[in-house]
Amino acid sequence: MLYDHLAVGPQGHLLFRGYDTVTLAREYGTPLMLLDEERVRRRCREYRQAMEQFLPAGSHPLYASKALSIKQIYRIMAQEKMGVDVVSSGELYTAVQAGFPMENAYFHGNSKTNADIHFAMEHGIGCFVCDNAEELDAIDEQAVRFGICQRVLLRLSPGIDPHTHEKINTGRVDSKFGAAISTGQAEALAVRALAKKNISLEGFHCHIGSQIFDCQPFCDAAVILLEFAAMLREKHGYILRVLNLGGGMAVPYTEKDPSVDYRENIRRLGVCIRETCSRLSVQLPAILMEPGRSIVADAGITLYTVTSTKQIPGFKNYAAVDGGMTDNPRYTLYRAAYTVLPASRMQDAAALCYTVAGCCCESGDILQENVELPPLVRGDLLAVLTTGAYNYSMASNYNRVPRPPIVILGKDGPYLAVRRETYEDLVRCDQ
Amino acid sequence: MLYDHLAVGPQGHLLFRGYDTVTLAREYGTPLMLLDEERVRRRCREYRQAMEQFLPAGSHPLYASKALSIKQIYRIMAQEKMGVDVVSSGELYTAVQAGFPMENAYFHGNSKTNADIHFAMEHGIGCFVCDNAEELDAIDEQAVRFGICQRVLLRLSPGIDPHTHEKINTGRVDSKFGAAISTGQAEALAVRALAKKNISLEGFHCHIGSQIFDCQPFCDAAVILLEFAAMLREKHGYILRVLNLGGGMAVPYTEKDPSVDYRENIRRLGVCIRETCSRLSVQLPAILMEPGRSIVADAGITLYTVTSTKQIPGFKNYAAVDGGMTDNPRYTLYRAAYTVLPASRMQDAAALCYTVAGCCCESGDILQENVELPPLVRGDLLAVLTTGAYNYSMASNYNRVPRPPIVILGKDGPYLAVRRETYEDLVRCDQ
Repeated sequence: MLYDHLAVGPQGHLLFRGYDTVTLAREYGTPLMLLDEERVRRRCREYRQAMEQFLPAGSHPLYASKALSIKQIYRIMAQEKMGVDVVSSGELYTAVQAGFPMENAYFHGNSKTNADIHFAMEHGIGCFVCDNAEELDAIDEQAVRFGICQRVLLRLSPGIDPHTHEKINTGRVDSKFGAAISTGQAEALAVRALAKKNISLEGFHCHIGSQIFDCQPFCDAAVILLEFAAMLREKHGYILRVLNLGGGMAVPYTEKDPSVDYRENIRRLGVCIRETCSRLSVQLPAILMEPGRSIVADAGITLYTVTSTKQIPGFKNYAAVDGGMTDNPRYTLYRAAYTVLPASRMQDAAALCYTVAGCCCESGDILQENVELPPLVRGDLLAVLTTGAYNYSMASNYNRVPRPPIVILGKDGPYLAVRRETYEDLVRCDQ
Repeated sequence: MLYDHLAVGPQGHLLFRGYDTVTLAREYGTPLMLLDEERVRRRCREYRQAMEQFLPAGSHPLYASKALSIKQIYRIMAQEKMGVDVVSSGELYTAVQAGFPMENAYFHGNSKTNADIHFAMEHGIGCFVCDNAEELDAIDEQAVRFGICQRVLLRLSPGIDPHTHEKINTGRVDSKFGAAISTGQAEALAVRALAKKNISLEGFHCHIGSQIFDCQPFCDAAVILLEFAAMLREKHGYILRVLNLGGGMAVPYTEKDPSVDYRENIRRLGVCIRETCSRLSVQLPAILMEPGRSIVADAGITLYTVTSTKQIPGFKNYAAVDGGMTDNPRYTLYRAAYTVLPASRMQDAAALCYTVAGCCCESGDILQENVELPPLVRGDLLAVLTTGAYNYSMASNYNRVPRPPIVILGKDGPYLAVRRETYEDLVRCDQ
C-alpha cells in the first residue's frame, strides 16, 4: 500500500485509518472525500519541529491554505501553531470565521484589489506578500489611512526552473508572479518599499514551483535571494529579517514516485543557508516555508461509486463513476497521476486495464487512464488516493454537479467537516 | 468589431448592446458577466425556423443547457419553444425550478445513478438519452416501478473524428460516451432496448464533437446512423422515429475564425438526410439538434478590472485582472482563444503585447496570451468576448474566489439573472 493509513479488512474492503470505506460510503453517500486528521497534524509537527531544529531562530511553516481552504483546516492549523498563507479575501474570510489568529496569516496573490487590501487590514492581517509596485502603492495608501506600519514581504522571481510541470512552475523570470531579480526590477521594488514610512519591509518571498522532489532547487533559490539581500545591504543598508522560500515540496501520488523525507530536506536546507549567510556575512534571517500539498494531499482519499462499465474491443475499457472533473479537475488540467483502488473488492485480482471516467458530459472528464482493476460492475466502490490537496479547493459545479462532503477521521471517529451541496445550494444565486 | 452588438461610445468606452460597459462595471462590480438576451432569442429562432423549414416533420432544436445552466435561461428557452438537454439532476432541478416543461427535456450523461433516474422520472422527464446497457437496465427497472413506458434514445458512437480538440471530441469509437456501431455494441444495445416492455426506443443520438465549423461531419454522422437504422429495420424490423445529431456547431471566438451560417448548414444537412433516407428506403425521422455554445457563447462578455501590470524586459508584459480561471477555465484547460478588448480605452491605440493573467495563485491561471492593447494601468477595464458558454457553468471557487454575477441586457434594460456570490456563500457548507 502507498500509505500506512490504508489496509484491507476481512470482507476485502479498503480500510482508511481502520474505518471500512464501504460503510463510510453507505453512511455519507458518494462521491465522498475523507481526510485523516492525525496525518495532517503529524505532518505539521514534522515541518514545525524540523524548522525549529535546523533553521535559524524564528523559522516556522505557514500552511498554504489554497491546497484546502475550509474552516476546520484553519482550526487544526491554529491548534498546531502553524501560520497560514491565504491568497484571497475569501480564504481570509474563511480563516477569520474559523477563529484563526490573523497576526499569523500572510496575504499572497498577484492581483489584490483595494477591497482585498482593506478587508485584510480591517482583520489585522500579519503580513502582505506584495507582488508588484502598483500593489505596494495601494498597500501603503491604505496603511496610511489605517495609521499603521504594515509588515510586507516582497515576492521575487529568482529565475529557477525546478524541472516540473509548466503550469505549476512559478519561479521563472517570465512568471506572472513577483519581480525578477535578473532584470533589476526586484531591486527597484525593494527601494520603493524602503522609501515608504508605513511599510515595514520584513524580507522576501519566492515560490519556485510545485511537486519538487529534490531539495537542491530550494537551496539554489535561497542562495539567489541571500545574494540579493547582501547586495541590498551593500547598496542600501538594508538588513534582511525574513526569507520565505514558499512551498513546493513534493508528495508521492503513485508507487512510481520517490518518497520524500521532509525533515532531511529541511536539515540540508539549513546547512546551505548557514553556509551562504556565513560566506556573504549576512545576518541569519528567519526562514518561512509554505507547505500546502505536503500537509494535506496524502491525508485525503475520495470514494466514488461505479455507475457503468464499458469494454470497447480493441480500444479501451471504461469504468464511469459518480464524480469526476467537478471534484478533481487535476487529470483534466495537468494529466496528474493518481492511484486508484477497488475499495469494495480489494481481494479480487486485477484483470482489466481501465480508463476511469467522470460523470461530466465532456470527453476530457477522465480521472485516470491505465488503471489495473478487477472486472467492475455498477455499484462497485473505487478509491482515489492523495486527493486531500487541490481537489475540494478546485471543485466546480460544472454540469450542475453538487460538490461532495468532506468527512474527517479524527481521534474520536469520523465527523462531517463540509456537508454535501444540495440542489437548493446550486440555484441559491439564481434570480 | 467581431459582433454587431458591440460599439464604441463617445468617451471611448465599449458599448454592449448600447450600454456603457464602464457604467455597468461601476454599478455591478467586476468581474461581471453580461448576456445579450435578444441575441440568445434570435439564435433560438434561427435554429427552430431552419429546422422546421429544411428538416423532416417534427424536427426541432434542444438547448444543451450545460453551456449555461441558470434558471433564467430555462425560462427564455421555454418562451422560445426550445426543448432542452440536461446532463445531471442538478441541471434538471434548475429547469424544474424555472418552470420549464419537463416533457420537452432530454436527460443525457454517461453516468446516471439510480437516484438520478428516479429524480428524472419523478419530474416527468420527456426522454432519456441512454448511454449504456447497465443504465438501460436501471431505467427499465424504474420505469416498471413507476408503471410507465419510458421514451429513450440510445447514444451511439459513429466513429467520426471532426478534427477538433481532443478533449472535446466525443464521437470516436474509443469515447467514454455511448455504444460503438463498428464493434456491434450499438446493435446489441438496441436489441436489448427493443426487448423491454417499459422502454419505448424512439431512436438514436450521437455527438461528434465541438467547435465544428463545417457541415460535413454532421452529414457523415447522419449517414452512418441512418445506415445503422436501415440495418436494424432489416434484421429486427425496427422503425426509426427520432435521430438526434447532438451539438457542436462552432462559434467564432476571434477575427481569425470563419463565420458560421447555421441556417445554411441545416439546409445542407436536410438535403443530405432526405437523399440518404431515400437511398436506404428509410422513413424520414424527426431530427433533433443540440446547440448550446452557438446559442449563448457570443451573447456573453465578461468585464474585468486590471489590478496590476508588469513589463519584464525581454520576456513578457502582464496585465493581471480580478478574475481568471475561476470564472473562465477554458484557456487553462484547452488554451482556448478569446478576443480581449480595452473596454475603458477603446480609442487608444494598441501599443503592447500582453499576457492577460488571472488572480489565482497558479501560474497556469492565464486568460489569454499575445493580446495587443494600449499601455494599461491598475483600474482599467478589460472585456473578454464570447464568454456566454462554458464560463459561468465551469466556474469554481478555487482560491475561494466568489463567482461573478450575470446581468442580462433585456429589452427593458439590464437585470440581474444571477447574483454575485458572497463570502458567506463560500463557507455555507463548512461546519
